[in-house]
Amino acid sequence: MALIVHKYGGTSMGSTERIRNVAKRVAKWHRAGHQMVVVPSAMSGETNRLLGLANELAPAKRGDAFDRELDMLASTGEQVSVGLLAIALQAEGIDAISFAGWQVPIKTSATHTKARIESIDDARVRGELAAGKVVIITGFQGVDSNNDITTLGRGGSDTSAVAVAAAMKADECLIYTDVDGVYTTDPRVVEDARRLARISFEEMLEMASLGSKVLQIRSVEFAGKYKVPMRVLSSFTPWDIDINEEAKSGTLITFEDTEVMEKAAVSGIAFNRDEAKVSLLGVSDTPGIAYKILGSVADANIDVDMIIQNLSKDGRTDFSFTVHRNDYAKTIDLLNNKVAGELGAQEVTGDAKICKVSVVGIGMRSHAGVASKMFRALSEEGINIQMISTSEIKVSVVIDEKYMELAVRALHRVFDLDQDNSTDAI
Amino acid sequence: MALIVHKYGGTSMGSTERIRNVAKRVAKWHRAGHQMVVVPSAMSGETNRLLGLANELAPAKRGDAFDRELDMLASTGEQVSVGLLAIALQAEGIDAISFAGWQVPIKTSATHTKARIESIDDARVRGELAAGKVVIITGFQGVDSNNDITTLGRGGSDTSAVAVAAAMKADECLIYTDVDGVYTTDPRVVEDARRLARISFEEMLEMASLGSKVLQIRSVEFAGKYKVPMRVLSSFTPWDIDINEEAKSGTLITFEDTEVMEKAAVSGIAFNRDEAKVSLLGVSDTPGIAYKILGSVADANIDVDMIIQNLSKDGRTDFSFTVHRNDYAKTIDLLNNKVAGELGAQEVTGDAKICKVSVVGIGMRSHAGVASKMFRALSEEGINIQMISTSEIKVSVVIDEKYMELAVRALHRVFDLDQDNSTDAI
Repeated sequence: MALIVHKYGGTSMGSTERIRNVAKRVAKWHRAGHQMVVVPSAMSGETNRLLGLANELAPAKRGDAFDRELDMLASTGEQVSVGLLAIALQAEGIDAISFAGWQVPIKTSATHTKARIESIDDARVRGELAAGKVVIITGFQGVDSNNDITTLGRGGSDTSAVAVAAAMKADECLIYTDVDGVYTTDPRVVEDARRLARISFEEMLEMASLGSKVLQIRSVEFAGKYKVPMRVLSSFTPWDIDINEEAKSGTLITFEDTEVMEKAAVSGIAFNRDEAKVSLLGVSDTPGIAYKILGSVADANIDVDMIIQNLSKDGRTDFSFTVHRNDYAKTIDLLNNKVAGELGAQEVTGDAKICKVSVVGIGMRSHAGVASKMFRALSEEGINIQMISTSEIKVSVVIDEKYMELAVRALHRVFDLDQDNSTDAI
Repeated sequence: MALIVHKYGGTSMGSTERIRNVAKRVAKWHRAGHQMVVVPSAMSGETNRLLGLANELAPAKRGDAFDRELDMLASTGEQVSVGLLAIALQAEGIDAISFAGWQVPIKTSATHTKARIESIDDARVRGELAAGKVVIITGFQGVDSNNDITTLGRGGSDTSAVAVAAAMKADECLIYTDVDGVYTTDPRVVEDARRLARISFEEMLEMASLGSKVLQIRSVEFAGKYKVPMRVLSSFTPWDIDINEEAKSGTLITFEDTEVMEKAAVSGIAFNRDEAKVSLLGVSDTPGIAYKILGSVADANIDVDMIIQNLSKDGRTDFSFTVHRNDYAKTIDLLNNKVAGELGAQEVTGDAKICKVSVVGIGMRSHAGVASKMFRALSEEGINIQMISTSEIKVSVVIDEKYMELAVRALHRVFDLDQDNSTDAI
């Protein structure tokens, strides 16, 4: 008997018929003798419907009080899902009970719409499991120290599931989604993209942070921090598929890297159209300048991704960074109205029509030349590179958005990802 | 400066446009210097949508675990409303904050789908009011001692509003609805029905319990117990109507009955198609028989309204009572499978196609002959009376459902309710 966490995305919960299928699948796992905790997302479309209503009524100036109410509103989508799934399980003859985040409780920071999980008290959940029940917990949400409902941001249900699995030391966290695993790149862009049977935690972290939408990055961070075995698999296989076959399907996220040396240099190509580039031109190149710029940005709760500072010339330098595209206008305003003046910058510029393309691979550590091979491939396609950022296991470039598909296909080809040359390839 | 509670029904909250109007109306009251607490219902149609989803998935056998999940589900409708109304008030430039029942907290019994309010802690609400905010609280719901969400049953938002007004010793509780007050009877059935400017608490209690849908009966009980001044008025007057005019509109529920002697004998005709009649025929007429029958019914959480025991004949008697029509099948099952056998009853019968028609008036106390006038009027229309029940200020009869409109119109006429012969008539 194992303790298993299942997470189902919004598409998998998209209708009563689909919820019934989720219930049948969970019932199968429960009947196989496992203790089951299930974390469903809101029914697909529901969060957008709720936020649409909020947008119709929203004040021109949004602040913390507004974000608090957005969380009050948006968190209902998951509450509907857990209630319906519990009912569907009861119809299958399974004892099931649902909890909202505040009932567990899942305690979070107070940053509405972007809260972070701080602690999970699993006493009540364990009690219900011990009583033979399937426990269903709302994804995406928690409660802060004021007793206010918080949400974790888009895709937060993955994080909820992994955090619950970590807190309860679950044997495995299965992320059921509308794709059947992690691919070398998005199959909608590259026809020859292949599913990976396994991917290392480090690679998955890069893939998630670089724009692969399969998993929310914080869920991967959680999985890594607590070594939660995690698998991405399809919720659209028939629910009565053999449980042993199902348990081996999809893509497993692994924590060992004993076989790294044998692995191909590059495992996948990620891309991301969600970012925007902003630049402060002609700022004085004095110590602490980066801190002064990014400190103001962080204080405004804007996350920064890539950061580049040019070589200084005549005591002045250019400073560029990328932010989420939703934060672009806010960032430009902040730089224009506050930061640029304080630092004596000559100009603020920006571009929201960029994309980031990355090659990722844990084998890159031991293979030289990945970056140069990547730059050459892009150059051969006539694509200009605007920013570069590297880590031990990835190389990312920012390019004009219009070249995205072209770049991804070229890189998928030059790194032989369409060839079955890896033990992890399917 | 007064502390005012506003309650808005589902129709008043039925679209973002209507929510915006509610916000403008509340803002007007707030700007006039009042401390405002607002209790909105779920957007019209939302509770039915949620329960419809639950019904599609429901198990054949429903029990407490199912009801708990129904409450989890149904309570989201009001949570959406409070979030949206807070946002709409913020857009009007008013500081507003919303609370779910568990956040206040509004503590209730653990009887899911039919919980009763036990206590309200107003500390956090008072704190927010003192900080100048409009406080918006979910109607219809609370939290039990297990930290589980409960709901108060259909129309429970009225009860929530009055209970909050009582706990906070509010100066007045205004119930905004889609009708402009309490009428002598339902204007959809009797064209000449007139609005009452005032109605005594006792009459309102009878009207509510007898089927007038204007107010939920428990809200009237609460108002009476704590002497909460309560007014029923229309949410469809323009929001910018003069506040002093608005404050005097609708129907006031009063607690003085100093003018009773001058009042007309009958204030209104109520009717109710929500009941069903069940009978146990030929039970031994021994002491404690009524307790044995109704004890089993109460244990099954079925509310009983009228109760009639026939004269005994040969040591056997017939015992009839009415229940809510939704409980009819459950009651018949209970009697057939348990009670009839235990008590040696000869037969269980029932009829769901009945209606109850009542004449109500605090003046009835001092006027003889109301009952006989009522029975004669029904007799002249050829309507057979199946059950009779009386109290100090009302006479109710159960008749065949098909005669309902005929009976109501006849009674409205014979008691001169279409004539403006009362100081309270409009």
